[in-house]
Amino acid sequence: MKLSKLVGERTKSTPSDATMKNHILLLRAGYMKQVAGGIYSLTTLGERACLNIENIIREEMDALDGQEVKFPVVMPKELWDLSGRYSSIGSEMARFTDRTNRQMLLGMTHEEAAVHLVKNWVNTYTQLPCMIYQIQTKFRDEPRSRGGLIRVREFTMKDAYSFHMTQEDLEEYYNKMHKSYERIYDRVGVGHHVISVKSDNGMFGGNMSHEFMYLNDYGEDQLVLCDKCGYHANQEVAECLYHNEKQDKMKPLKKVFTGDAKTIEDVSKFLNIPAQKCMKAVVYAIKGESGYVVCFIRGDREINETKLRHICQKEVVPYDAREDKNFCAGNIGALGLNVPNALVFFDKSLEGLTNLVAGANEKDYHFTNFNFERDLKDVKFHDISKVKVGDPCVFCDSSLSLSNGIEVGNIFQLGTKYTKSMGMEVRTKDGDEINPIMGCYGIGVGRLLACVVEENSDENGICLPMSVAPFKVHIVPLRLEDEIVNQKANELYQELQNAKIPSLFDDRACSNGIKFADADLMGMPIRVVISPRSLVENKVEIKLRKTSETIMVDFNDAFDKISNLIMSNM
Amino acid sequence: MKLSKLVGERTKSTPSDATMKNHILLLRAGYMKQVAGGIYSLTTLGERACLNIENIIREEMDALDGQEVKFPVVMPKELWDLSGRYSSIGSEMARFTDRTNRQMLLGMTHEEAAVHLVKNWVNTYTQLPCMIYQIQTKFRDEPRSRGGLIRVREFTMKDAYSFHMTQEDLEEYYNKMHKSYERIYDRVGVGHHVISVKSDNGMFGGNMSHEFMYLNDYGEDQLVLCDKCGYHANQEVAECLYHNEKQDKMKPLKKVFTGDAKTIEDVSKFLNIPAQKCMKAVVYAIKGESGYVVCFIRGDREINETKLRHICQKEVVPYDAREDKNFCAGNIGALGLNVPNALVFFDKSLEGLTNLVAGANEKDYHFTNFNFERDLKDVKFHDISKVKVGDPCVFCDSSLSLSNGIEVGNIFQLGTKYTKSMGMEVRTKDGDEINPIMGCYGIGVGRLLACVVEENSDENGICLPMSVAPFKVHIVPLRLEDEIVNQKANELYQELQNAKIPSLFDDRACSNGIKFADADLMGMPIRVVISPRSLVENKVEIKLRKTSETIMVDFNDAFDKISNLIMSNM
Repeated sequence: MKLSKLVGERTKSTPSDATMKNHILLLRAGYMKQVAGGIYSLTTLGERACLNIENIIREEMDALDGQEVKFPVVMPKELWDLSGRYSSIGSEMARFTDRTNRQMLLGMTHEEAAVHLVKNWVNTYTQLPCMIYQIQTKFRDEPRSRGGLIRVREFTMKDAYSFHMTQEDLEEYYNKMHKSYERIYDRVGVGHHVISVKSDNGMFGGNMSHEFMYLNDYGEDQLVLCDKCGYHANQEVAECLYHNEKQDKMKPLKKVFTGDAKTIEDVSKFLNIPAQKCMKAVVYAIKGESGYVVCFIRGDREINETKLRHICQKEVVPYDAREDKNFCAGNIGALGLNVPNALVFFDKSLEGLTNLVAGANEKDYHFTNFNFERDLKDVKFHDISKVKVGDPCVFCDSSLSLSNGIEVGNIFQLGTKYTKSMGMEVRTKDGDEINPIMGCYGIGVGRLLACVVEENSDENGICLPMSVAPFKVHIVPLRLEDEIVNQKANELYQELQNAKIPSLFDDRACSNGIKFADADLMGMPIRVVISPRSLVENKVEIKLRKTSETIMVDFNDAFDKISNLIMSNM
Repeated sequence: MKLSKLVGERTKSTPSDATMKNHILLLRAGYMKQVAGGIYSLTTLGERACLNIENIIREEMDALDGQEVKFPVVMPKELWDLSGRYSSIGSEMARFTDRTNRQMLLGMTHEEAAVHLVKNWVNTYTQLPCMIYQIQTKFRDEPRSRGGLIRVREFTMKDAYSFHMTQEDLEEYYNKMHKSYERIYDRVGVGHHVISVKSDNGMFGGNMSHEFMYLNDYGEDQLVLCDKCGYHANQEVAECLYHNEKQDKMKPLKKVFTGDAKTIEDVSKFLNIPAQKCMKAVVYAIKGESGYVVCFIRGDREINETKLRHICQKEVVPYDAREDKNFCAGNIGALGLNVPNALVFFDKSLEGLTNLVAGANEKDYHFTNFNFERDLKDVKFHDISKVKVGDPCVFCDSSLSLSNGIEVGNIFQLGTKYTKSMGMEVRTKDGDEINPIMGCYGIGVGRLLACVVEENSDENGICLPMSVAPFKVHIVPLRLEDEIVNQKANELYQELQNAKIPSLFDDRACSNGIKFADADLMGMPIRVVISPRSLVENKVEIKLRKTSETIMVDFNDAFDKISNLIMSNM
């Protein structure tokens, strides 16, 4: 490919709204162009890089006996009514009415379509397990797109669906898929910084899932990590452990004036009692229902809403109780709380604590020396807290740390949610009819490219790994008007073309500085400089973008050297 | 791939709504499954066949220096407002409102997105010509989906866009693309029955286009063909030629009673004058305007509405004048027509005719011996008629024939419609700024597969060409429980797998009859039968699906023979 004809402009200026490296570099190097918020066109460079990633994913899916299929982007409401997701999913799903007034939707995931495709085909246990996958465009109407290709509204995704007769068979396959994902991240050059964490199943349903997280400060997900035993989890599902055994003896309950002290911080300061000895109240509304969820938690901790939702089985949303006469906001306590339609939950962080400060449900007053054992019997404690840095690991008791991560893949054990609701039945060896157990497995291609760039770039631009690079070689002839340079450069280019090694040829009439800067910015792994000076000794310079390693080779050996470099770096 | 695990059911029954071969066979052989009207999921067989077609298209586009990019499926209204197509395209375009109340659409074509992508990049003439293409999902809300993958609402399409400095350069590229398309049809096995015809540019705009038509009785397009000079055109744009020179001398105009005779057929019979001597009136309404278009044409001919639209520059729709007091329906004539807001057009078939029967604009009366020269001077005649079988060819005067065809690709010269409306300017060699000239080029992948099946099938099923077949070899072991059969069949299968030759292995415990019937139905090009009987002599049977040619080869030579057959048939 002649660089003068390569679609996509390269710019020096940083887009004003871009903060993440991948966003800045993919725009500056001309890999993509924004069409609308969270919607991009990919140029030649961007699309070729994505196709390379897609092919790596395809190879790994095929190695797991995956069968590539294609589901429609547009599906009818009726199909999604079967699983109940047409109504349970909110405005992130785009919907429209077709010309015959039928409700249609743009698929963000394809569990229903997968069951629809295999349902009538599978009759008997010998046909399972089977796995189908597609690589297809998806639309998800994200409220906030950000970070370039990190969070977009339209994206290409590989989504896979497996069907099994037993939970054991699913688990075995799930573990294979886990390893397959690790291979994919290794092959595209982000493996070193991708970890898998247990995660919440969210709208997919089912009972076990892992996310693959690329560790990155800009990540929106918070991860809980134990360096000692290797426990990893998304904050959303990370379990908390407390050592509250050693406590003071119970003292008499007292109601005390706390005046304007409403927050835990103020009350703690006013009474000179640490936040760890205070019981904090957090109020939620229930979406689509009247009524509240009131949570009590240790003063120094935060509610994990995902865990809360699972426990109360309600769609909770934060609620400002200051506007509501049912509550004495700032003084809400468990003792004497008298609110109609309130579900009350206590976090495990409070279990076993004595002599707590607690709201008295009376303006300007708190209790001190509140004790569950004496003052509020038969309380059940649930784990509804976020993990804090330094919390003990539930597995090995050592200190946990927190990190941010970008989700670059997820795998789910779905159970029979979809096969049951869609009436898919398969005959077992014993002649019984059962609903097969499903797994589903997703990777977003563009987001993975973005992480590849985050991981593989420096102050001068992108340095793509060989496996992902849209072109493997970038030929920079200095002084193309020099006849020998021109001839030799074209000769090498032609040799590479004949060998089907994708190569860029900088045929532009511009300064060497611009040529070098653009080569660094665009990030092809091998740069070949052909200059009049080195050609005097029949030499060319080969430089690896990633390591800056530079070697001079005889022009006649250049092709072989390049081929070897490509082979050894794929 | 083991057949027992291949997703997609094979059935004997013909789907009740299916009439076309491809529709019946692709469903019966398990290549696809319907999700909603005009929306299909593709199984492993269907998707692999489509990917093979896509790769052939990709190779041909790359050979024309095409650069693969990807445009979004979902685009904002604003982008389409620039070309005016957001409002000019009707309900075939799906639209929705996103969560921020912004109007979005599903792209059916990507001219606007193509200009948006290259606009800022191209500054100067040395960067052109360039061509970009994508292979991407499209949605078009067709009022009537039909014929399986022939006319669907969601489909995968290759759409390409080229940019040029001059019309000559576009034409040169356009001709190359024409040849490239011919190669694509040849390579997928439909070349023998695909012709290119001149066509109407429709919603794309511009001034020259060709459609590639697969000749097929079920085709919705009517084609005009000259067997002598090779002139081909879509009926929509086909030119008419008349030899009306020899006419009778003018006779006196007479008003005659014709009573209930309202249609040309009735009037012609009533007066005993052939339809060719009658002047027929056809009335149209104008979409979105008050007013009419009234056309006069020779009694034996039909109006071509596409040509009429071009000439009157109005969006005309057929109109029933019987309900309208402005017209004397059944007796409408050119002489004395007194309708407000009526545009009147005369077809060339009338030019030079004498002594015509014509409506008198009076209930129950027609004129005879109407003559333009005397009765209605200064009439301009336009070509607004459909071609009829036997009409003279405009190029060589021999008899034209008509045929039906299915559009399997189209190429357009677009002019500057999009580059001008979107303000794309490029500096010429002389320093002027001009709007580059565009071409666009489309092929629907699924529809092409459907035509490949129409062309390559027999009473037993599909017989795919090697280039398209999802698997090249179909191994049918008879009596798998026979140890030697089992061992040899698996040995050959493994050898093919190692050589990355996609192969199907029928591992099912079912009758030989079912195995053979399924192999014929599914249509892989090479069938290998491994039976206990032939293995006695260490032989296997190789059969070509398409020709039924059968050979017995030594088991040890089977792999080489198969490889050679694949190589020689790709």
